Amino acid sequence: MPKRFEVDGARVLADLNALRAFGAYKTGVHRPTFSKEHMQALEWLMAAMPSAGLTPEIDGIGNVLGRSDRPGPRLLTGSHLESQNYAGWLDGPLGVIYALEAARVLNASDLSGSVEVASWSDEEGHFGSLMGSRSYVGAVSDEEIDSAHDRTDGRAMRQAITDAGLATHPRLLYEPGRHIGYLEAHIEQGDTLEAGNLKIGVVTSIVGIWQYEVTFTGAQNHAGTTRMAVRRDAGLALAKFCIAIDEQFPKVCGPRTVWTTGRMTLDPGAPSIIPGEATMLFQVRDADPSVAERLESVLQSLAADFARRGPCGVSVKRTRAGAPARMDAGIQDAIETACAEHAPDKSLRMPSGAGHDAQMLAKVMPAGMLFVPSIGGISHHWTENTSDDDIVTGARVFVAASANLLERAVRG
Amino acid sequence: MPKRFEVDGARVLADLNALRAFGAYKTGVHRPTFSKEHMQALEWLMAAMPSAGLTPEIDGIGNVLGRSDRPGPRLLTGSHLESQNYAGWLDGPLGVIYALEAARVLNASDLSGSVEVASWSDEEGHFGSLMGSRSYVGAVSDEEIDSAHDRTDGRAMRQAITDAGLATHPRLLYEPGRHIGYLEAHIEQGDTLEAGNLKIGVVTSIVGIWQYEVTFTGAQNHAGTTRMAVRRDAGLALAKFCIAIDEQFPKVCGPRTVWTTGRMTLDPGAPSIIPGEATMLFQVRDADPSVAERLESVLQSLAADFARRGPCGVSVKRTRAGAPARMDAGIQDAIETACAEHAPDKSLRMPSGAGHDAQMLAKVMPAGMLFVPSIGGISHHWTENTSDDDIVTGARVFVAASANLLERAVRG
Repeated sequence: MPKRFEVDGARVLADLNALRAFGAYKTGVHRPTFSKEHMQALEWLMAAMPSAGLTPEIDGIGNVLGRSDRPGPRLLTGSHLESQNYAGWLDGPLGVIYALEAARVLNASDLSGSVEVASWSDEEGHFGSLMGSRSYVGAVSDEEIDSAHDRTDGRAMRQAITDAGLATHPRLLYEPGRHIGYLEAHIEQGDTLEAGNLKIGVVTSIVGIWQYEVTFTGAQNHAGTTRMAVRRDAGLALAKFCIAIDEQFPKVCGPRTVWTTGRMTLDPGAPSIIPGEATMLFQVRDADPSVAERLESVLQSLAADFARRGPCGVSVKRTRAGAPARMDAGIQDAIETACAEHAPDKSLRMPSGAGHDAQMLAKVMPAGMLFVPSIGGISHHWTENTSDDDIVTGARVFVAASANLLERAVRG
Repeated sequence: MPKRFEVDGARVLADLNALRAFGAYKTGVHRPTFSKEHMQALEWLMAAMPSAGLTPEIDGIGNVLGRSDRPGPRLLTGSHLESQNYAGWLDGPLGVIYALEAARVLNASDLSGSVEVASWSDEEGHFGSLMGSRSYVGAVSDEEIDSAHDRTDGRAMRQAITDAGLATHPRLLYEPGRHIGYLEAHIEQGDTLEAGNLKIGVVTSIVGIWQYEVTFTGAQNHAGTTRMAVRRDAGLALAKFCIAIDEQFPKVCGPRTVWTTGRMTLDPGAPSIIPGEATMLFQVRDADPSVAERLESVLQSLAADFARRGPCGVSVKRTRAGAPARMDAGIQDAIETACAEHAPDKSLRMPSGAGHDAQMLAKVMPAGMLFVPSIGGISHHWTENTSDDDIVTGARVFVAASANLLERAVRG
C-alpha cells in the first residue's frame, strides 16, 4: 500500500542537525531561553516556515507561531527550541521539526485544512513554569513577567525580552475556535519504550508536579568544639529525612509515582561549621492527584514526627501544586491509527512523567502527545539521544496522525 | 593575700568593647581578614602597644608584633583580630587583649623580662589555614600566597595585601631563642567548662583535623520520566552515606572525637533533575592520630561497600591531614598554678577541639593555651559570648600564668 503522505526522513534529520548547531555543546546543546543561540534557532524556524505554507510571527514572550491561510480545519502542532543548560539536542526541537514536516507535507497536499506550527518559549523553565504556552492560553500576567528572573544568572525576564528585541512585540493569545486541537511530539525521556522494544508512546495524561521546600532548623556551631551529644545538626536531620521518605513512600505511592530531592543546601556550608539550617527541594509527580495528596500527608507526618523527636525543627512548604492534564481520547485514537500503519504493534499508551506545553494547550483545546524512545532513558543531559530510525518512524506517525485528525474534522 | 600583679578588669572589658566597634554586626562582628575593619582593629592595637612598653610592627601578611627592649626572658603572647563572617566579638580579640593587659601589667612591673604581643593574621582561614602564624614559623611560601583567594568573594590574597597597604612590608619570621614560649588565651567555643561550672580550661593538646571530599557518581536524569527502580541518584547515596557514618563511627571513635558534614552539593541542583553527582565535605577531629587513622579506614570501607552494592560510585579524597599539637607541660603547670590563686578548683585540663595559632607556634617553641567559658557553647556565630566576670577571671589567670613563666625562666 503506497503511503498517502510522504514524509522526507532525511529532511527531518537534516533540520534537527541544523538546529543542533545553535549552541552546540558536546553532542548536545546549551541554548537557554532568550540566549543568542535560542533566538538564532527561532529565526531559523521562521525562515523555514514559508516553505511549509506558513506566515511566521514572533511574540513578546518569544513564542513563534506559523499561520496558514488555507481554508478548512486547522491543527496546531509544535514544541520548544530552547534547552536546559548543557542538555540534549532533541528535547523540544524534535516536536518542532515534526510539526514543520507535517505542515510541509500536509499544507501542500490535497487534504482539506492545514497544520499550524508553534515554538513555545521557555518550556524548560529558565524563567518560570511553561511561560510561553501558558502565556498563549492567557495565564501569564505582565506582573509575573516583571518579577521573573533567570534561575541560572538572575537576569530579569523583562530585560532578557528587551535584549532579545521582543519588547515591542505583543503577546499572542489563542483564538477560540481557530484550532481543532493540539498535537505535540517529544522524546520519552524515560526508558519505558526502549525497555519494551517499542517505537511510539501514546500519551494518556501528563502527570501533576507537587514541589516542596523542606527546611530543617538546628543550631549553628563550631565543628571542633561542640560535642556530638549536644549537636543540633540540620544537615544530618536532612539526610535522615531523605532516608525516611525513601522508606515510607513506597508503602503508599502509586505504580508510577516518582519523587526526587534535587537540591540540598546546608547553611553556612563551611567545613568547620555545624550547619544550623538545611533546605531540600523535594518533588513528587503522579497522574493521580489523590496519590499526591496521600504522599503529602506522609511528608507532613514525617516532618511532625522529626520535629517532635528533635533535635531539629522541620517545616514543609508546598511551592508548586500542578494538577495532571488528561490527553484527548480522540487524539489518542488518531495516533494509534497512525501507529497501525507505521509502527504496528510497537505502541504503548502511557502517562508522561514530564511536564509539556501540551498540558497548557489542553486547558483550551483537545490536546495530545506522542513519544519516541530515548536511548538509555537519558534526558536533561547532553548525552540524550534517539536513533535516526526511531526519529523517522516518529515523524511518519506524527504526520499520519495529523492527517487523521484533519480528515476526521472534515468528516465531522 | 594581696595580688602581686593588679589586672585592670574594667580596662580589659573596655578594650574588648572598643575592638567590637570595628565591623560591629548585631552583638558580634563581621571583620574578615584584610577588610577595612580588620585593618582598623590592627591600627588600634598598634596605637595601644607603646602604653604596654612595646614597639609595634606590622608585616607583609598582616601579622602585628609588639616588641619590648626590656632585658631578661621574653614571653610571646597573642591571638588574632579578624573574625569569621558575621561571627562573635571574642573569638581572637580576647586573647589579644589578655596579651596586651599582661604586657601593660608585667612590662611595667619589677619582674625581670617582658611580655611581647602578637596579633596573627587570618587565623580564621579566609585565605588559607593559619596563614599568619604559619608564616611567622616559616611555613608559608610566596607561591602559596600568590595562589590563595578569599573563600567568600574570591579576591586574590596578593591583591588583598596590596589593598591593605602591606605589599612593601617584609614578612616577620620567628627569631630562634628570642622567646621562652608562647601563651594564648581563647574562648572555649564548646560547653565543657560551662556544663561543669568551671572557669578555666588548661589546654593539653590541639586536635588534628582530617578533612575529606566524598564524591558520589550516579546518573543525571529527568525527575519525571525516570522510574524509581532504575535511578542512580547521587544525592540519595550521599544521604545514606551520612547515616552510615553516623551508625559506624560511634563504635570505633575516641571519647572526644567529633565529625561533621559541613556541605552537601548536588549537581546540577535543580528540582526536576535527578542529581548525577553529589559531593560532601566531611571533617574528623581528634587529639589522637591513631583514632583518626581508624576512622579513615572505616570511611574507606564504607565507601568501598557502597560502591560495590551500587547504584552509585563513591570516592573518598583526603584534602587535609593535620597532626595534633601537644601543649607544653611546663606551661600547663604555670596556668594551673595561676588557677590555684584566681580560680581555685575551677579549672580542667582538656584538649582543644578547634585549631589555634598556638599549634603553629608549638612547632618552634613551648606553647600553651587557656580557655574561658563560652555561654551555651556557642561559637562562630554572632551570638557567641562570655560573661564579664569570666572574662576578668580569665585575664587574671592569664597575667599570673605569664608572670609565673617569666619568673620560672629567671630562676632557670
